[in-house]
Amino acid sequence: MTVTLSATLAANEDIERRRRAGERVLHLAFGEAGLPVHPALRHKLVAASDLNGYGPVAGAAELRKAAAGYWTRRGLVTEPDLVVCGPGSKSLLYGLLLAIGGDVVLTQPSWVSYAAQADLVGSRPIMVPAPPGEGGAPDPDRVASAVLHARSQGRTVRSVLVTLPDNPTGRLATPQTIGRLVEVARELDLTIISDEIYRDLVHDTQTPFLSPADLAPERTVITTGLSKSLALGGWRIGVARLPNQDLLGRMLAIASEIWSAPAAPVQEAATYAFTEPPELVERVVRSRRLHGVVAHAVHAAFVAAGASVPLPQGGFYLYPDLGYLQAGGSVEVTKLLLNDHGIAVLPGQAFGDDPSAARVRVATSLMYGESPEERLTALTSSDPLSLPWIAANLEHLSTGLRTLSAQRTAPRRSRRATLLPTPVHG
Amino acid sequence: MTVTLSATLAANEDIERRRRAGERVLHLAFGEAGLPVHPALRHKLVAASDLNGYGPVAGAAELRKAAAGYWTRRGLVTEPDLVVCGPGSKSLLYGLLLAIGGDVVLTQPSWVSYAAQADLVGSRPIMVPAPPGEGGAPDPDRVASAVLHARSQGRTVRSVLVTLPDNPTGRLATPQTIGRLVEVARELDLTIISDEIYRDLVHDTQTPFLSPADLAPERTVITTGLSKSLALGGWRIGVARLPNQDLLGRMLAIASEIWSAPAAPVQEAATYAFTEPPELVERVVRSRRLHGVVAHAVHAAFVAAGASVPLPQGGFYLYPDLGYLQAGGSVEVTKLLLNDHGIAVLPGQAFGDDPSAARVRVATSLMYGESPEERLTALTSSDPLSLPWIAANLEHLSTGLRTLSAQRTAPRRSRRATLLPTPVHG
Repeated sequence: MTVTLSATLAANEDIERRRRAGERVLHLAFGEAGLPVHPALRHKLVAASDLNGYGPVAGAAELRKAAAGYWTRRGLVTEPDLVVCGPGSKSLLYGLLLAIGGDVVLTQPSWVSYAAQADLVGSRPIMVPAPPGEGGAPDPDRVASAVLHARSQGRTVRSVLVTLPDNPTGRLATPQTIGRLVEVARELDLTIISDEIYRDLVHDTQTPFLSPADLAPERTVITTGLSKSLALGGWRIGVARLPNQDLLGRMLAIASEIWSAPAAPVQEAATYAFTEPPELVERVVRSRRLHGVVAHAVHAAFVAAGASVPLPQGGFYLYPDLGYLQAGGSVEVTKLLLNDHGIAVLPGQAFGDDPSAARVRVATSLMYGESPEERLTALTSSDPLSLPWIAANLEHLSTGLRTLSAQRTAPRRSRRATLLPTPVHG
Repeated sequence: MTVTLSATLAANEDIERRRRAGERVLHLAFGEAGLPVHPALRHKLVAASDLNGYGPVAGAAELRKAAAGYWTRRGLVTEPDLVVCGPGSKSLLYGLLLAIGGDVVLTQPSWVSYAAQADLVGSRPIMVPAPPGEGGAPDPDRVASAVLHARSQGRTVRSVLVTLPDNPTGRLATPQTIGRLVEVARELDLTIISDEIYRDLVHDTQTPFLSPADLAPERTVITTGLSKSLALGGWRIGVARLPNQDLLGRMLAIASEIWSAPAAPVQEAATYAFTEPPELVERVVRSRRLHGVVAHAVHAAFVAAGASVPLPQGGFYLYPDLGYLQAGGSVEVTKLLLNDHGIAVLPGQAFGDDPSAARVRVATSLMYGESPEERLTALTSSDPLSLPWIAANLEHLSTGLRTLSAQRTAPRRSRRATLLPTPVHG
């Protein structure tokens, strides 16, 4: 087993080191929501600070009930008994891959940790690209042929994983794609794991959102958490909605031996969050708006520089293709951006993309400010792009991209001499 | 893979259900410290409630430094860079088994989760009994022969795990045993995993305590946490002290894909705890005393009833042998105690012990009271056994054991007709 530190977490730690060393680095490499904790959640954590006993493995009864209500309000009637909580949806996804077993179909590209988790549990991921222009769900027809081919070679394929909306592409799979994927999953008897941690951050709430669980509740697991919509990444809380008691039993067995349960005070705060009180709904609305506005501004900067980049529809990510620079694959382009222009992104290769493609993942959420005050100001501003620190970050990005374009499209003799490929972090 | 909910957690949930249904059950089946959070730790959690970002996978720098100080004060000079934190030492133990790979030697009996975790990572445990009268470390000579035998059959054996002091037996491996085990580990090139979560709860601080890391720092990992000494089980925080950067790198890779890091506010509180300020040192001293006094009283009750039971030396566990009842193996005896006498314990079988032996694990820490007030009173009392609720719990236990002994040692015709074996929870 050859595993390395998660690419996103490794990049984050590398950038923090560079910054401490005095480098000016625009940090677009880390999927942290970049916003402060809502005071109501802090109050709930404080009020629960006396809770120190081991609670139920599945999570506190009230938390499971609140999470069930969250999904029920989204049209997915949910039994609290089929909810399981974990210290982050990452843990739950790991547990699911272990509980379901067999190989898993992933979208190419997809979040760095899916394939790494699959490797840890001894599952071999089958990478299938999304339909053209989409992201987050593999092309259903290609899933069918890939699974049949793998099975013909004696492999056991048990699941397919989708991310709605997607990290890294920022795209949302269409209802048509989800519909066809569900048909394929039924035909091939695959469990569908639907990672919907960015669901509440679809920028335009009129965008049609279809979960596989809407069509195939009998075979779909949904995972979500509060790391993105309420910026609680460091609190470590996620929830999963399971299709049946059998998978629940296997998940609880795994959870009880690996993590027991999320921190009890955090569970109390999460219970409150999943009931969706007005002040937290408002916080999510504001967050969604900020993420959308900034992601679109960053999109414009890449387009202006000449990159091909799909318009982001949710979350705080973009996935530009910098192939026009002719500067090598994603690892080389990432190094060039970081070392010469102080712009930190992640190479598409870390997401399982073709290493020779110059696609990189850009996370926009750490542009909102360095201090909690700046971030809170960004969140409440009617025009966040005009805030000096956000404007400066955007300018840093645009200048870097413009300079790079000029350098790379100038005659070849003026180019930087050495662009040796080096391993990515993770 | 056939996994079931952790035996201890399943038993706990079963007992809670019985109690809600009105049954009087003396809960001696769960290894929760049964004491309140110290206010200083609550204050630290509250002060850190604004921390919501993803921190470093290894844990916050200050926490790693504090944990290094904790070990250094115990004679084990520790580099903060070789400390890794996790959401409970359970998670860290799982990660270690995965990172080290191969099969693991466990003591028979040993904590329920070791063998279950080994199963999850595809490792086959090799169960070796402790030397007579001891617990927590396998007999070194038998380790040598068991490992050589396993290797002769083509198995890869990479580690041996000890628990100092032990759960379930409450015994502390002697320095002689640890010394010999270290020699064997060196000869066989085994990594030693030393679970020292009960270290600060050795009842008599004059009892000689030797960690394998004292003798073989180059091959020993120590894990500990705050669940036992400071009763923070529900907060989920553990730390590991690793022997080298290679294992650290593998652990971080695993941690980054399964749990990321412990909850950030909890890390802040743990940082304070590992600096061992006077009020927390005093809390641990009081806890240790209470655990010792009650465990010894429970020991006396079992001895009075006719059981053979080693004197507990640390933590809050005893491991009586009820074979004199001639009531079957540990599962049958456990059912008899629960169903007929309202005494909940765990069968030795859950700890990997011989199922035909009538040994059970008794956890004494939930006798301190039902309310935080009762528990705090127990903690500060100079004579906790005289507190009405603790006296009543001890009386319930003694009466049950006496009645059982009388029934079972009466002529066979008066005995309960059916004692069918049923599966244990986990």
